[in-house]
Amino acid sequence: MSDKQLRIGLPKGSLQNSTIELFNKAGFSVTVDERAYSPDLGEDELWGVLLRAQELPEYIAHGVLDCGLTGYDWILERDVDVVEVCDLLYAKGGMRPYNWVLAVHENSGIESWKDLQGKRIATELVDVTKRFLAENGVEAEVEFSWGATEAKCPDLVDAVVEGTETGSTLRANNLKIIETLFTSCTKLVANKEAWDDPWKRAKIESIALLLNAALEAENKVGLKMNAREEDLDAVIECLPALKKPTVSPLANGGDEHWVAVETIVDGKIVKDLIPALKAAGAQGIIEYPLSKVVV
Amino acid sequence: MSDKQLRIGLPKGSLQNSTIELFNKAGFSVTVDERAYSPDLGEDELWGVLLRAQELPEYIAHGVLDCGLTGYDWILERDVDVVEVCDLLYAKGGMRPYNWVLAVHENSGIESWKDLQGKRIATELVDVTKRFLAENGVEAEVEFSWGATEAKCPDLVDAVVEGTETGSTLRANNLKIIETLFTSCTKLVANKEAWDDPWKRAKIESIALLLNAALEAENKVGLKMNAREEDLDAVIECLPALKKPTVSPLANGGDEHWVAVETIVDGKIVKDLIPALKAAGAQGIIEYPLSKVVV
Amino acid sequence: MSDKQLRIGLPKGSLQNSTIELFNKAGFSVTVDERAYSPDLGEDELWGVLLRAQELPEYIAHGVLDCGLTGYDWILERDVDVVEVCDLLYAKGGMRPYNWVLAVHENSGIESWKDLQGKRIATELVDVTKRFLAENGVEAEVEFSWGATEAKCPDLVDAVVEGTETGSTLRANNLKIIETLFTSCTKLVANKEAWDDPWKRAKIESIALLLNAALEAENKVGLKMNAREEDLDAVIECLPALKKPTVSPLANGGDEHWVAVETIVDGKIVKDLIPALKAAGAQGIIEYPLSKVVV
Amino acid sequence: MSDKQLRIGLPKGSLQNSTIELFNKAGFSVTVDERAYSPDLGEDELWGVLLRAQELPEYIAHGVLDCGLTGYDWILERDVDVVEVCDLLYAKGGMRPYNWVLAVHENSGIESWKDLQGKRIATELVDVTKRFLAENGVEAEVEFSWGATEAKCPDLVDAVVEGTETGSTLRANNLKIIETLFTSCTKLVANKEAWDDPWKRAKIESIALLLNAALEAENKVGLKMNAREEDLDAVIECLPALKKPTVSPLANGGDEHWVAVETIVDGKIVKDLIPALKAAGAQGIIEYPLSKVVV
Amino acid sequence: MSDKQLRIGLPKGSLQNSTIELFNKAGFSVTVDERAYSPDLGEDELWGVLLRAQELPEYIAHGVLDCGLTGYDWILERDVDVVEVCDLLYAKGGMRPYNWVLAVHENSGIESWKDLQGKRIATELVDVTKRFLAENGVEAEVEFSWGATEAKCPDLVDAVVEGTETGSTLRANNLKIIETLFTSCTKLVANKEAWDDPWKRAKIESIALLLNAALEAENKVGLKMNAREEDLDAVIECLPALKKPTVSPLANGGDEHWVAVETIVDGKIVKDLIPALKAAGAQGIIEYPLSKVVV
Amino acid sequence: MSDKQLRIGLPKGSLQNSTIELFNKAGFSVTVDERAYSPDLGEDELWGVLLRAQELPEYIAHGVLDCGLTGYDWILERDVDVVEVCDLLYAKGGMRPYNWVLAVHENSGIESWKDLQGKRIATELVDVTKRFLAENGVEAEVEFSWGATEAKCPDLVDAVVEGTETGSTLRANNLKIIETLFTSCTKLVANKEAWDDPWKRAKIESIALLLNAALEAENKVGLKMNAREEDLDAVIECLPALKKPTVSPLANGGDEHWVAVETIVDGKIVKDLIPALKAAGAQGIIEYPLSKVVV
Repeated sequence: MSDKQLRIGLPKGSLQNSTIELFNKAGFSVTVDERAYSPDLGEDELWGVLLRAQELPEYIAHGVLDCGLTGYDWILERDVDVVEVCDLLYAKGGMRPYNWVLAVHENSGIESWKDLQGKRIATELVDVTKRFLAENGVEAEVEFSWGATEAKCPDLVDAVVEGTETGSTLRANNLKIIETLFTSCTKLVANKEAWDDPWKRAKIESIALLLNAALEAENKVGLKMNAREEDLDAVIECLPALKKPTVSPLANGGDEHWVAVETIVDGKIVKDLIPALKAAGAQGIIEYPLSKVVV
Repeated sequence: MSDKQLRIGLPKGSLQNSTIELFNKAGFSVTVDERAYSPDLGEDELWGVLLRAQELPEYIAHGVLDCGLTGYDWILERDVDVVEVCDLLYAKGGMRPYNWVLAVHENSGIESWKDLQGKRIATELVDVTKRFLAENGVEAEVEFSWGATEAKCPDLVDAVVEGTETGSTLRANNLKIIETLFTSCTKLVANKEAWDDPWKRAKIESIALLLNAALEAENKVGLKMNAREEDLDAVIECLPALKKPTVSPLANGGDEHWVAVETIVDGKIVKDLIPALKAAGAQGIIEYPLSKVVV
Repeated sequence: MSDKQLRIGLPKGSLQNSTIELFNKAGFSVTVDERAYSPDLGEDELWGVLLRAQELPEYIAHGVLDCGLTGYDWILERDVDVVEVCDLLYAKGGMRPYNWVLAVHENSGIESWKDLQGKRIATELVDVTKRFLAENGVEAEVEFSWGATEAKCPDLVDAVVEGTETGSTLRANNLKIIETLFTSCTKLVANKEAWDDPWKRAKIESIALLLNAALEAENKVGLKMNAREEDLDAVIECLPALKKPTVSPLANGGDEHWVAVETIVDGKIVKDLIPALKAAGAQGIIEYPLSKVVV
Repeated sequence: MSDKQLRIGLPKGSLQNSTIELFNKAGFSVTVDERAYSPDLGEDELWGVLLRAQELPEYIAHGVLDCGLTGYDWILERDVDVVEVCDLLYAKGGMRPYNWVLAVHENSGIESWKDLQGKRIATELVDVTKRFLAENGVEAEVEFSWGATEAKCPDLVDAVVEGTETGSTLRANNLKIIETLFTSCTKLVANKEAWDDPWKRAKIESIALLLNAALEAENKVGLKMNAREEDLDAVIECLPALKKPTVSPLANGGDEHWVAVETIVDGKIVKDLIPALKAAGAQGIIEYPLSKVVV
Repeated sequence: MSDKQLRIGLPKGSLQNSTIELFNKAGFSVTVDERAYSPDLGEDELWGVLLRAQELPEYIAHGVLDCGLTGYDWILERDVDVVEVCDLLYAKGGMRPYNWVLAVHENSGIESWKDLQGKRIATELVDVTKRFLAENGVEAEVEFSWGATEAKCPDLVDAVVEGTETGSTLRANNLKIIETLFTSCTKLVANKEAWDDPWKRAKIESIALLLNAALEAENKVGLKMNAREEDLDAVIECLPALKKPTVSPLANGGDEHWVAVETIVDGKIVKDLIPALKAAGAQGIIEYPLSKVVV
Repeated sequence: MSDKQLRIGLPKGSLQNSTIELFNKAGFSVTVDERAYSPDLGEDELWGVLLRAQELPEYIAHGVLDCGLTGYDWILERDVDVVEVCDLLYAKGGMRPYNWVLAVHENSGIESWKDLQGKRIATELVDVTKRFLAENGVEAEVEFSWGATEAKCPDLVDAVVEGTETGSTLRANNLKIIETLFTSCTKLVANKEAWDDPWKRAKIESIALLLNAALEAENKVGLKMNAREEDLDAVIECLPALKKPTVSPLANGGDEHWVAVETIVDGKIVKDLIPALKAAGAQGIIEYPLSKVVV
């Protein structure tokens, strides 16, 4: 047993369950004791801690933690210097990219950030908002909001800066977007010194590889089919060009020469692919689920 | 983007969830807004609508919809002229075939439809029942029932015509079956003109192919095993004769010649197959799940 | 249809659901009517009955049942003569091995079974405990406990003999373990005469094979990857030595010679394996789930 | 035990639970076996049956049932001749009055029933709608809808006639109301001959009295307070004039003369009443819940 | 604070929740820590413990506990000498009286206990059953059953002795009752020496008084009404003769002399009482709920 | 309808449901639309808004709101000048008083705030903590924590300032309390200018009166009993001296003189009171629930 240890921060709250599920899919055995803030990640070399996404950037930047998963929004807000190892785009379970936007009431008459001079803005990202205003030469009061920000406009404030995936919550509050400040997503970030330590960096890169392998598998499926050798080109023609499929000879074709074709494709295109493959002569087409994909 | 569009009706109510699940398994991305009657099927060329199974036959026959999933019972009841594209036998979730039967109380003394002259019959299929009686020269009063029909006999009516899968609800109400009128199942049906339109017909056939591929996969599993070449015949002997398995040579057998055997079989026979395969010399037998099967 | 029948007992209560789930994974189609004590196992040759694990050993020993799943603890307690066919270690759902221990209050001053002379002990395994004391020449009163035994010490008794997996319930009651009597797990056991009947024995062995194949699959995953022939040795080096992987030639490598490598590994090692395989030159690595594994 | 029996129909479906709850509050002991359509009403003289609200009017009109609870809408639709004993306005649980309205899409350009000539209308109340159109000299096609009617406009029909309490479902479908046909509520109705039978009529009137006593109690609360005799007039002044409160002398006032004042008031006015009563000199004011109120 | 303490045993398992609810209604503040076997009864003089009803009689008889709530069946089975303080008939929540019966399969041909000579009987009450057989001169094998006893007949045993409230579980297993051994209910029982201790006896009697006051209140309701003095006799005539109602003069009748009548009646008769009272001239009748009743 | 309006802020989040329940008990009809931040309080003169307890003090102090319910802790933290109208001690549902304490790990060696010089402290109440340290002449780093503060000690900080009701969460994290800073509870607070407006002040006082009447009723019960006049003194002796009971003469005592005694007492003493009252000669004792109590 090594006495080295990587300290990793995981987001507590709305992303907690999907993060733990992701680590489990990636091959870790995470167990969270109900009251404990430190989940057991199943190996001695990893020490994990659950903290609010807002708190993680500083703990990582200051080296209290070696790395962690947090949102790009909170990295910007805390204005810290960390290594952005990779994006983590959860296909399921809520870690999709989303925009931070400037929104006002649809009847407010405000059309642009230029109209915000002297107004009041509520947001969870006070510093990001202040920097945006300063860069654009606008003076306005920015107040911190503890959530449900969109509901405060226009009764309590003139504008909000708020994160939104589809805009539906804003629309339900009769707000309209007048500017998109930036796009945020979940990232794996590392402390700079930890990144320079070869053992820690290798460990962090392994985690990145496994998390991405699990995420990739959520979008991909395995396809297998048999084809006569003379139909092989037509069958391969149907498949996405990006990645060559695996073709293996079959021993039991009799007089005919048959091959087995196997490939990994995006799950979304299967409904167009299968009719095409069948038309091209593929037989015994099957689709099967995947747990990890490393391209 | 094509500006062509196929209008498809899906059954609302008890079959709604399993239908949407089936479309998702088939590769579509269906999202149902809680209040909306028009689910998003994930592609511009498809417009879907949720309607009661009873209402669908007429909307399809009249061309308001191009195709849809409904029960054979309601096609008969509405007496419409549509193309029956294929049966859809949901292995899980409730779209199994079921019988429409004529049933009476077990103490009623009624033994056959011949005893129904002058009696009262409750049913959801008023027209089917009237046609059945007319064909057999029986005159009886047929009244529409809004459900829970079996409970009305014998307090309110003398007989019922009711759909039943296992007969257990009828037995629990002390009713006995005296005649089976017909067997119903869910069908994909199409409007006649839509079927004559090549683009629409191809689209409908693709949907049929994908739905059946997903349904087929629920009943099937993948089996893989290795075998010495001299055991291959004995191993293949165990497998269902219907479909030849895929046999591929292995490169790493050393002095012995090994092959990999792979096949798709009905999940129900696996518990008999595995002991037999092992006895025949198969090694490293694994079973894995499938998402789609196109035979 | 054969008129032979194997009578099998399944544990009612806390293990019931995971047992039924296991049989279903193994390929049986078990349906349990809510009130019925005899589940339908989906084939005429098998008659199943749900009984308390405590009751099963005697019914099997006396030949009322041919075989059954019960705990080793209750086999010992009932002191019956049965054939232990195999252990069944449920990876998920609670049939893990656990210890039966002698425990006392941490402030009791009792340090060993030697200090129990003249004391009172509560346990569900009265006979096992009495035999243990007799073998060690200790005289103590042993009283039957209907459960929640650990809570009775020290208010009502001086010591308990209790089954425990992690010891956490004992610790939560401030008890300390002073002796481990034996380790118990779920076993498939058979009546001796049934085991001597060739048809019944073959049937029981098939069940054992299938249950173990399903349990094995819970811990294992399938791995597939492609590699250049010159990297093959390095790739194989990474894989567990126990079982040779399947290597098959690829037809479409072009100038390079590529092979497909496929193997089954323990799911727990995948997170260490994938980074190593990638470093060794493996490409297109995928992991997929398994339903049954017969090694 | 009397051998007389009153046959009563209760609405199955959305109103079933609140109806049974109402009968229990009224003092009956209703038990519904899960599968049974005939709930046990707890006394031999009452035989109950659960039927769809749509089916009840005819069964009552034809004397198959003596009385029942159904909606005024279905009485109108079936056009039957029954005795309307009383309205039942459930304060909680959903039997509030609601309107049947004619609605069209807000962008349809249709402003009145006059614009419906030649159009198609979907509704559950086909006969009511046809009569309305006939009275107004409009010819339009009226088709039966099995529910979710509002979603069919404008894709499938031009207008709907639909029941609505607040109009929110209509608005959510972008429909606007252009006419209110009538207001419906739940009613206790009786068969005409049953009403002429003194025993049955007394029984029905008792049921009406008890159901109304329970409904009344949901809206009412008991108030008690003490007051000096000289403050009594001011206190009584605060109370609703409708019903004189009960005033009783207190024996233990000492030198002062005190009285206890007790009354039943509408729960909604209590929040205005209590501050006023206190200002008028009332002391020891308490509010307590009521189970039945017969004014 | 007294340093005296009463040790009371409460039934764990199916009666646990309704027992705790009963104590809370009776005025105690019971809190049960999830894992603890000793609930906090809210006062220092009471120490409670949750044990299986089967275990309680012996702990009370031996003086480990001073008193407790257990079933009469387990008092009989354990054959212990305790003081039966009072019956506790839970109107709601399951502690109703029930019978222990001897039952056999309806096709067994067994008609009476006389036919059980040489047969096998399964039961939870082994000693009670053996005593019954011995008293009647029948020799049969009696085996202990861990529950679901009725399912074992006739496959595993010839007869069962089982507790039943309505007989429905027996009927569902096709068993028929051939003898009722005794009727059981929940009882508050005390240790003999504790009962002789004046402080403990007073405490136990208080508990009995309060538990019964709470149970009584579940069946009773309060009724209040006003009446003209000349109608008083007719109104009182309607009320149950058992207990005289409270009649108090009203101060504000004006010329007429009015009185307020108040009484406590069984909730079950209210539906007959209210129509009668109204007919007799009572006005402003209200029913209100009760929390405790000490007659 | 008045055009005056009182703007009231209610706490969003953990106290939201119990606050709304309290307002409903107090006689308001609160309805919360799922997405809306402004609940409908059922009268035009009241406009409510749901905001985080942390945000409310400033909105009230600045006059954006006239009054609101928030914690004393956040009033202190925000250091605002508002009118504290009354405490609101929720007996049920979680608004009980709780302490804000300084806690450290039990093995830290820190015994007092004097040992905190140069240490790091995490808390949600940064300003309160800084003021406390300044007053005591201690210099330490105080960092804002987004919750789960207790888990951060000692891994991330040396001490925490945290709110706690029973201390159990602290103990579960192995923290010990070394100082209690202050006790907090929920308060109704008002803006100073709103308090000077007679209409608004009367409205706020009414709300305070009604909320307290509802809270009071949760702890109180009504008791009624009859007694012979000669037992009256003994009966009254048993009752709490604080508040004289209501005694009214009974008209129907016959030769004996009876009185009815009625009083309101704390629910907690009933279990001691009833046995005493019975012993003193009280008869027909009943307890009934209360909805509001204004003493």
